[in-house]
Amino acid sequence: MTRTIDLSARAKGMPASPIRRLAPLAVAARSAGKHVYGLNIGQPDIPAPREILDRLKSFDEANVAYGPSEGLPEFLEALRTYHAGWDIELSTEEIFVTTGGSEALLFVVAAVADPGDEVIVFEPFYTNYSGFAGLVGVETVPVTTLSEDGYHLPSREAIEAKISSRTRAIMLCSPNNPTGTVYTDAELELVADLCRKHGLFLVADEVYREFTYDGLRHRSAMTLEGMEQQVIVTDSLSKRVSLCGARIGWIVTRNREVLDAVLRFGQARLCPPTLGQYIGSALNDVPQSYMDGVIAEYEQRRNVVLAGLDEMPGVFVRKPEGAFYVCTRLPVDDSNRFAEFLLREFDLDGETVMVAPGDGFYATPGLGLNEVRIAYVLNRDELTRSMRVIAAALEAYPGRRSTPGG
Amino acid sequence: MTRTIDLSARAKGMPASPIRRLAPLAVAARSAGKHVYGLNIGQPDIPAPREILDRLKSFDEANVAYGPSEGLPEFLEALRTYHAGWDIELSTEEIFVTTGGSEALLFVVAAVADPGDEVIVFEPFYTNYSGFAGLVGVETVPVTTLSEDGYHLPSREAIEAKISSRTRAIMLCSPNNPTGTVYTDAELELVADLCRKHGLFLVADEVYREFTYDGLRHRSAMTLEGMEQQVIVTDSLSKRVSLCGARIGWIVTRNREVLDAVLRFGQARLCPPTLGQYIGSALNDVPQSYMDGVIAEYEQRRNVVLAGLDEMPGVFVRKPEGAFYVCTRLPVDDSNRFAEFLLREFDLDGETVMVAPGDGFYATPGLGLNEVRIAYVLNRDELTRSMRVIAAALEAYPGRRSTPGG
Repeated sequence: MTRTIDLSARAKGMPASPIRRLAPLAVAARSAGKHVYGLNIGQPDIPAPREILDRLKSFDEANVAYGPSEGLPEFLEALRTYHAGWDIELSTEEIFVTTGGSEALLFVVAAVADPGDEVIVFEPFYTNYSGFAGLVGVETVPVTTLSEDGYHLPSREAIEAKISSRTRAIMLCSPNNPTGTVYTDAELELVADLCRKHGLFLVADEVYREFTYDGLRHRSAMTLEGMEQQVIVTDSLSKRVSLCGARIGWIVTRNREVLDAVLRFGQARLCPPTLGQYIGSALNDVPQSYMDGVIAEYEQRRNVVLAGLDEMPGVFVRKPEGAFYVCTRLPVDDSNRFAEFLLREFDLDGETVMVAPGDGFYATPGLGLNEVRIAYVLNRDELTRSMRVIAAALEAYPGRRSTPGG
Repeated sequence: MTRTIDLSARAKGMPASPIRRLAPLAVAARSAGKHVYGLNIGQPDIPAPREILDRLKSFDEANVAYGPSEGLPEFLEALRTYHAGWDIELSTEEIFVTTGGSEALLFVVAAVADPGDEVIVFEPFYTNYSGFAGLVGVETVPVTTLSEDGYHLPSREAIEAKISSRTRAIMLCSPNNPTGTVYTDAELELVADLCRKHGLFLVADEVYREFTYDGLRHRSAMTLEGMEQQVIVTDSLSKRVSLCGARIGWIVTRNREVLDAVLRFGQARLCPPTLGQYIGSALNDVPQSYMDGVIAEYEQRRNVVLAGLDEMPGVFVRKPEGAFYVCTRLPVDDSNRFAEFLLREFDLDGETVMVAPGDGFYATPGLGLNEVRIAYVLNRDELTRSMRVIAAALEAYPGRRSTPGG
């Protein structure tokens, strides 16, 4: 070729997934005969409900056809009914089905922000928010939350200081990935108030809605009064019913212009996956006992992890209220190095653990280096053993700090 | 709210799908008791191979888990084998699985072009190219091809005149949607040569690879010598094996930087649909007799449509070489109005036809108003009746032009 062929600046600037970057080390550890407990990624081991999985066997169409861009009527109706169970009364026109919560976030960011615009996120945050924003040229501006506060929101002033003339939305994930924090009513109202004052969209990621513990019940941003035109909820079947790979999510909003825009984005990609919607249409056939059992199981797992971490000298953790993650501060120099140490050099009776280094969940450079995220997606026995591995690894780790991290 | 809440300019500028915008009229026509032959959208009626669909019944995982961002190993291996059958020798690392051909196009455009950059398309073209480009801020610059030439490429000079300092790629769909044109070796070499000279990527959309008629065999852009770092192929299971709704596509390239960039884009959306990949892994179990039968069927359908159009006074059409579309010039004032007339006002013995107006496939304003695209995705008997409907409708249409359109 006569001229240099080069990628876009967007492509060059796109970060690799911090959650997945340790994968080659885990492969090597397993090849070397170690058992690796994977606590680094939110892939639940919980079986999907039979009511949903069994539908695969009843698919009897001659081929797998395109559905409507906005979703199959049968699945939209199932979602309408599901929301009614949460006292969110919707018409099916207020729901738009997407290819996972991922596409929901991509379409929403593209609908509310142009290249050079900004969206506010609370860090540590679900890293892929930056990925989707970067793909469409939008900047994520972080407001830092603290381990000491259980990652609850900072003051109104601290948030407001990050709002500029280019800010288009505040993104709020509750129950939170990666912290497990469930924001209080007062926090939700604070964010809503800032959105009202500054004319911003409130993008609420509620994929972990059911997963709250200690008797807490999640409040949806859809219930915020006077915010009908500003609230956009993104959601997904992935975690709720262990269908991560089905890639079925959706957008809920009462803002008709937003719905119209995502429909036009959605038409370009034709339709979300037909098979996932087909089986997901059985969502309301899943008995409450299934969800109750899953939630109870996660709550017990959280308690196992928390008890384990609490016993480790120099480890700081606050009890998270929901989802299936906990962020914890470790007495280490750099949690990336500690995560690599676990996979490369350490084992306890042939077992080790894979965790997600904390800095991957921050946009502010230098933060999170003494934190890790643990996804409690294994059973209690495995989690107990995993905690023993981490405790022993912290003692053996050459980069250990004598004082508690932070 | 105190400030006006508004969508992004990107959202406001996103066009509605021209193929789908007649949908409400079709619903009304059907409600009024008319039978509507849907020739407007590339949704084949051909059954999917049993080897693939039957796999749904053997899915026996406890849940539907995330797969790797680049695709399931089993499916990547099936794709490697499939390409070897076309004499394209790949490693699985040179294939990246996407959520349909749609996401493949989105990731490729994002990887090679920044906001404000341009990609060359040959119009009439697959309209969604503009949709994906618009989503990521890239402009599609059209080079017009003519009905009289069977929509084959214009001169080197005509193409080169559209290449600017912001051009990053030339997109080529062969066999072509919407025209059915299969570009010749000389045309493929011409485009490759322009890409070499101007340092551009050649993005080849080859989803209709198998569908060529009259003994013609498609040549993949992957076979272009000296273009290893510049060719990126997008592909899909959708049309090949009637799995449109499974949303399984892929990218093939030997350019490691492109592969690395799409991997990073792909990590943000976690993974392509697991179920579609699971059943698609049986791709190489599909007997050649299935593909031969499908191709023979489409060729006969093409001949039925062509014979019908050839008999209509004032209609101009050249025999298309592949895919399952034909673009034809009609003696009408505006093919949008004619398409609406068919649905709203016309029927022949209670039957009517839905076609895609031609202007939706052009970026140049005013072009395509006397053209329609017909997708021959119904059986021959239905196509014969559809042609009778169109012939009668052209006679009854008040906006008929006495001279052949064009």
